[in-house]
This record gives sequence, C-alpha cells and structure tokens, in this order.
Amino acid sequence: MTTARVLIALGGNAMTSPEGRATPEDQIAAIARAAEPIADIVATGAEVVLTHGNGPQVGNLLVKNELAASVVPPVPLDWCGAQTQGTIGAMLLNAVQRSLAARAVARPVAALVTRTRVDPTDPHFDKPSKPIGRYLPEAEARVMIEHGQVWEDRGEKGWRRVVASPEPVEILDAPAVSALLGAGFVVVAAGGGGIPVVRDEDGTVRGVEAVIDKDLSAALLARAIDAGVLVIATDVAGVALNFGTDRARTLGAVSVAELREHAAQGHFASGSMGPKVDAACRFVEAGGSAAVITSLDDIAEAAAGRAGTVVTADAGATADAGALADAGTAAPADTGAADAEKER
Amino acid sequence: MTTARVLIALGGNAMTSPEGRATPEDQIAAIARAAEPIADIVATGAEVVLTHGNGPQVGNLLVKNELAASVVPPVPLDWCGAQTQGTIGAMLLNAVQRSLAARAVARPVAALVTRTRVDPTDPHFDKPSKPIGRYLPEAEARVMIEHGQVWEDRGEKGWRRVVASPEPVEILDAPAVSALLGAGFVVVAAGGGGIPVVRDEDGTVRGVEAVIDKDLSAALLARAIDAGVLVIATDVAGVALNFGTDRARTLGAVSVAELREHAAQGHFASGSMGPKVDAACRFVEAGGSAAVITSLDDIAEAAAGRAGTVVTADAGATADAGALADAGTAAPADTGAADAEKER
Repeated sequence: MTTARVLIALGGNAMTSPEGRATPEDQIAAIARAAEPIADIVATGAEVVLTHGNGPQVGNLLVKNELAASVVPPVPLDWCGAQTQGTIGAMLLNAVQRSLAARAVARPVAALVTRTRVDPTDPHFDKPSKPIGRYLPEAEARVMIEHGQVWEDRGEKGWRRVVASPEPVEILDAPAVSALLGAGFVVVAAGGGGIPVVRDEDGTVRGVEAVIDKDLSAALLARAIDAGVLVIATDVAGVALNFGTDRARTLGAVSVAELREHAAQGHFASGSMGPKVDAACRFVEAGGSAAVITSLDDIAEAAAGRAGTVVTADAGATADAGALADAGTAAPADTGAADAEKER
Repeated sequence: MTTARVLIALGGNAMTSPEGRATPEDQIAAIARAAEPIADIVATGAEVVLTHGNGPQVGNLLVKNELAASVVPPVPLDWCGAQTQGTIGAMLLNAVQRSLAARAVARPVAALVTRTRVDPTDPHFDKPSKPIGRYLPEAEARVMIEHGQVWEDRGEKGWRRVVASPEPVEILDAPAVSALLGAGFVVVAAGGGGIPVVRDEDGTVRGVEAVIDKDLSAALLARAIDAGVLVIATDVAGVALNFGTDRARTLGAVSVAELREHAAQGHFASGSMGPKVDAACRFVEAGGSAAVITSLDDIAEAAAGRAGTVVTADAGATADAGALADAGTAAPADTGAADAEKER
C-alpha cells in the first residue's frame, strides 16, 4: 500500500470555544482538542497537511485596526490573514507536537506562511459579498463606507462589512509544502485560505485586500501536492439534505455527480455547507480519490472512509480509492440526525 | 568548493522607512530594497536563510492590543511576535522572489513559523529589561502596571514598558529550515528572534510572554543548520571603537578574542551594537567560520568577506574560513567613518 497523503481542513470550531469565543485561551484549548484526532491520523502513517479557517481571528484584528487607527496605521486585510497564519500556525505546532508525543509518534511538524494567488480581474472584486468582522450601527458603518469600505445592512444585528472573496487560482507556496512532506513533516499551510496575492504583468507578486474560502483553497492545495484524500472538518456529522427540517438526512457515500445535483437543488447554504460541498466536489473532479466532510471528532474515522459524507467519483462502484482504504466503497456512515449547522 | 550556507539577519532598517516609520507601505518599500542585495547573495549560488527583527511592528501591535482591549481580548506578547512572522514573512517572500526573478535566478523561497525555546528559569524573567512599544505619560503607565505589566520611567519621553528578553536556548523549528534548504529553498525563519516558548516537564511546549534578541537567535539558528557565515545587517558600515567620538574607528577583520576584549572595555552599547557583537562572537566560538556585521547595502560584499567587520577565530592567520571565500584573511575593509548608530 502506498502511503496515504491527506489534507485536513479545520473549520472555525477547531479554533474557538464551543460558544464561538476566540480569546487566546479559547483558541489554545480548542486547538489542543483538535490536535488529538489529527495525531490519530498521523499515527496511521499518513502524510498529513493541515489547513485552517481564521474568520473569528480576522474579525478581532479588524476591530483592533479600527479602534487604534488614530495612533497606528491600519494594516490591510491580507496582512490580517498573514497574522493569523503566524498565531494559529504556532498553536498548531505546539498542540500537534504534544499529541504526537503522547502517542510516541516521532514526526516533526512545520508551519508555512502561504500565499494564494487570485485573479485581479475576478468578478468578486467588483461585488464584495463575504461578511467579516463585527456588526456596527448604521452611523458608524457609514463612516467606514466613507473610508472606502463596503458595508451592508444585515437587519436587526446592524451593519456588517463585506469584502471580496475571489476564487483561489494557485497556492504559490505549494512546492514548500511538498518539500516538507517529502522530508517527513506534518505541514500546516494555507491558513485562512492563504494570503491573497495577485501577480502583476511584470511578474511582481503583491498582496490584495480580500479573503479566500479556506475549503476551496484546501481543495486546490490538496491537488497541487497530490493528496489522495481531502478531509473537511466541521461541526456537523456530514452533509445533510433537507437540513433543518424533519426530513433531514445525512449523506454517507455519495458520488460527485449526485452531490452536485443536490447542490443544484439548493440543499446547501451558500455561506456555510455550500462552499464545503463545492470544495469536496472540485477535489474529486480534479482527480482526488475521496473528499470527506465530517465533524472534527470523527476525522480519524472519516479519513479511513468510515464516517461522514464520503465523496468519490463513483460511490456505487468498487472504485480504486487510491491512497484511502475503502473510501470508494464505504457504506453510508451512521451519522444520525444532523446537528445544528453554525456559521463557519 | 562546497556550497556556502549563509544566514542573514536583517535589522529594523530593512523593514522601516529611513525615518523609522512602519506603515504597511513603508515596510513593503523597505523590504523591496533589502531584497536586492539578498538576491545578489543567492545569485552566487549560496544557500541562504533570512531572519529579521520586528521591534517597530510589535510596538504597533501592542498599541492595538491596548486601545481595543475593551472590545477584543488582548493577545500575549508571543502572539505579537507570531503575527509579525506572518506579515514580514509574506513581504519577504514577495520581495525576494521578485529580486531573484529580475536576476533570472530560479530559486524558490519559503517562510516558516518558527519557535525559539527559552528556559523558564532564565533570570531575565525576574528582571524585565527590554523596552518595547510606545512611551506613555506616568498616569497611563500606572494603569498598565496595575494590569501586571512592568513600566519604567525613561525620563523626558515618558514611561515605557519593559519585558523579559531571555536567552535563546534552541530553535525548535530548525529541522524544517534544514529540510527546506536541502530542497533548494531560500528560507525565512526565526523572525523577531522566534516565538518564545518553554517546554514543561511533561514535554508540553507553550508560548511565554517575552521577546528574544533576534541576533542571538540568528547565531543559534546559524549553528543549528551548520551555516558557515552569519551576516548581521544593520545601519552602520561595521563595528566601531570609540563610537560617537572623533577617535571612532570601524573594525575590519578582527579575531573573536580581540572583539570580546573590546566589548569588555565597554565599547558597544548594550541595547544596540552590544548584542550584535555578542551574537557574532558566539557564532564563531561555536564553530562558525565567519560572522560579519555591516550595513544592509553592503551585505553581498560582506558575505564574500570584502566589507564590514569580519569576525573569525583568528583574523591574523590564513585560516581555512570554510564556506566563505577569504573570510579569514580579508583585509580590513575601508568602511570610512562610522555612521550614526541608531536604536535597532
């Protein structure tokens, strides 16, 4: 059997308290919990890459930008993403190293600053739509709008900033991920979807103000490093049809074609399960063996194809699932009723 | 000839405007300038590791912590360091890649989140002495003191926070640096001296509130990765005796013993040239071929032993300087009068 190469994308719940708080202590504790199932996967001998969300963390940094603006020049949005790669990367290094040591698994861990290239002509730049940061009263939002930001009336809660979330085109630092994997490292990379950059005509790479969907970047990175399996860890047991109704049903093994059809029928929320389903489908369509969407606690079982929603090219056939044992032939997992779906 | 392995430690002037400003634009422009001589060194075929200071950047983050504290929980000092590894790392990736492309040098660049282990019983924890961040009036400083921070009266400018600056003991992520170097990468690592961590008795690694001298960490990392040459880039042409007097004389080739003697005589300021001299001496004493202290513009010449203050085990002998051609036998460089020495 070839060594499995697995990319695990950690959602916001791997980095915040169960109530969604993101103090430093909350983050450290949450990441310590997340490191346990990650270490279980590494302990199987798999080559593992970790990527992670950063929504609450970037939200905090934007508030700091705003409240300190009269004293310290605010930093652009891509810098906020870079900052979270540093802090979350360091926490993951500490936590995963500890969980590996507890299992007597001698594998080094490294965290890379990672840039993701986007297209400067991406239509999302003209239509910012990704809400980030805190809600403000209209009057305060209007001040930010005067400063060039885009804010939207989100109803009762107030106004919220929306930013461009362009398509990830290329993970610029994927070669470094491959080099470290090849040297035996567990690698943390493309945190927050990667630091968004564009490449100018003269070849210059520079940061741009945007956020990138971390699951779409994860799918792209997983293919770039030739991972067989993409695991998207979230706070529900799997992908549910008719979510939130009494006819809710969590999918087990599913073909990419079938899952795309469910998506087209509007089963998945655009700000939540939608991008995860899209990322899983893209990964398999691009040649990945299997993409699994499941809860953080179940990722070790899921990486072996025994939990969560397992997306393959043809779920019915006894396909060669490549690196992932039995992924293509896993029976629908007993995932029970869908848990409450939270915003990422 | 074996391939030279060089570690270049960039000072604050590589990341701020000539006037010391640190807006995002200032930082990007300064790093673009610094990337030029760095690319010249890479173009010689040398294996290059870059490390960098982060004083002004951490200062800005502390102000944000303070001014947003009522809304967003402040993050500890080690997180501020981690944040700057993300932002400065990304800027260096972009800038060095561009300068290499302009020279048609096909070498990839990677930036690592890097932790530096310190001793929890380091006496510096009981005697915080490193000033960081902005000056405040006494009344405001007293509020911070009530919150557990240490602030000192610095005279006319006001009060300033002082923090522990413990000795770096081990660069925990040095193996990742070696792996990437071995794969042909130019590597950015140990920014700001590394994220300070301690290892508890049970093996757990966790962050601690401190700052680490980036030149001392650079010397440690340089030995850990078996670099032959350590280049400390600053804003003066070299190490000067009788600095600031009309008898000022910049040293060229100097033995580590001689330089230690000058240091013992009090020639070098403790917050400024002192730690650089100490780092250079430690590197050579630990087996490094040559340590060079020089201005950022001169680092390419300095890496070849033709500029700056070149410290070797025995400056007078025609020693085998290992990777660095002629380093051990360089004639004293014509560095002219010492420039004004600024705070790092």
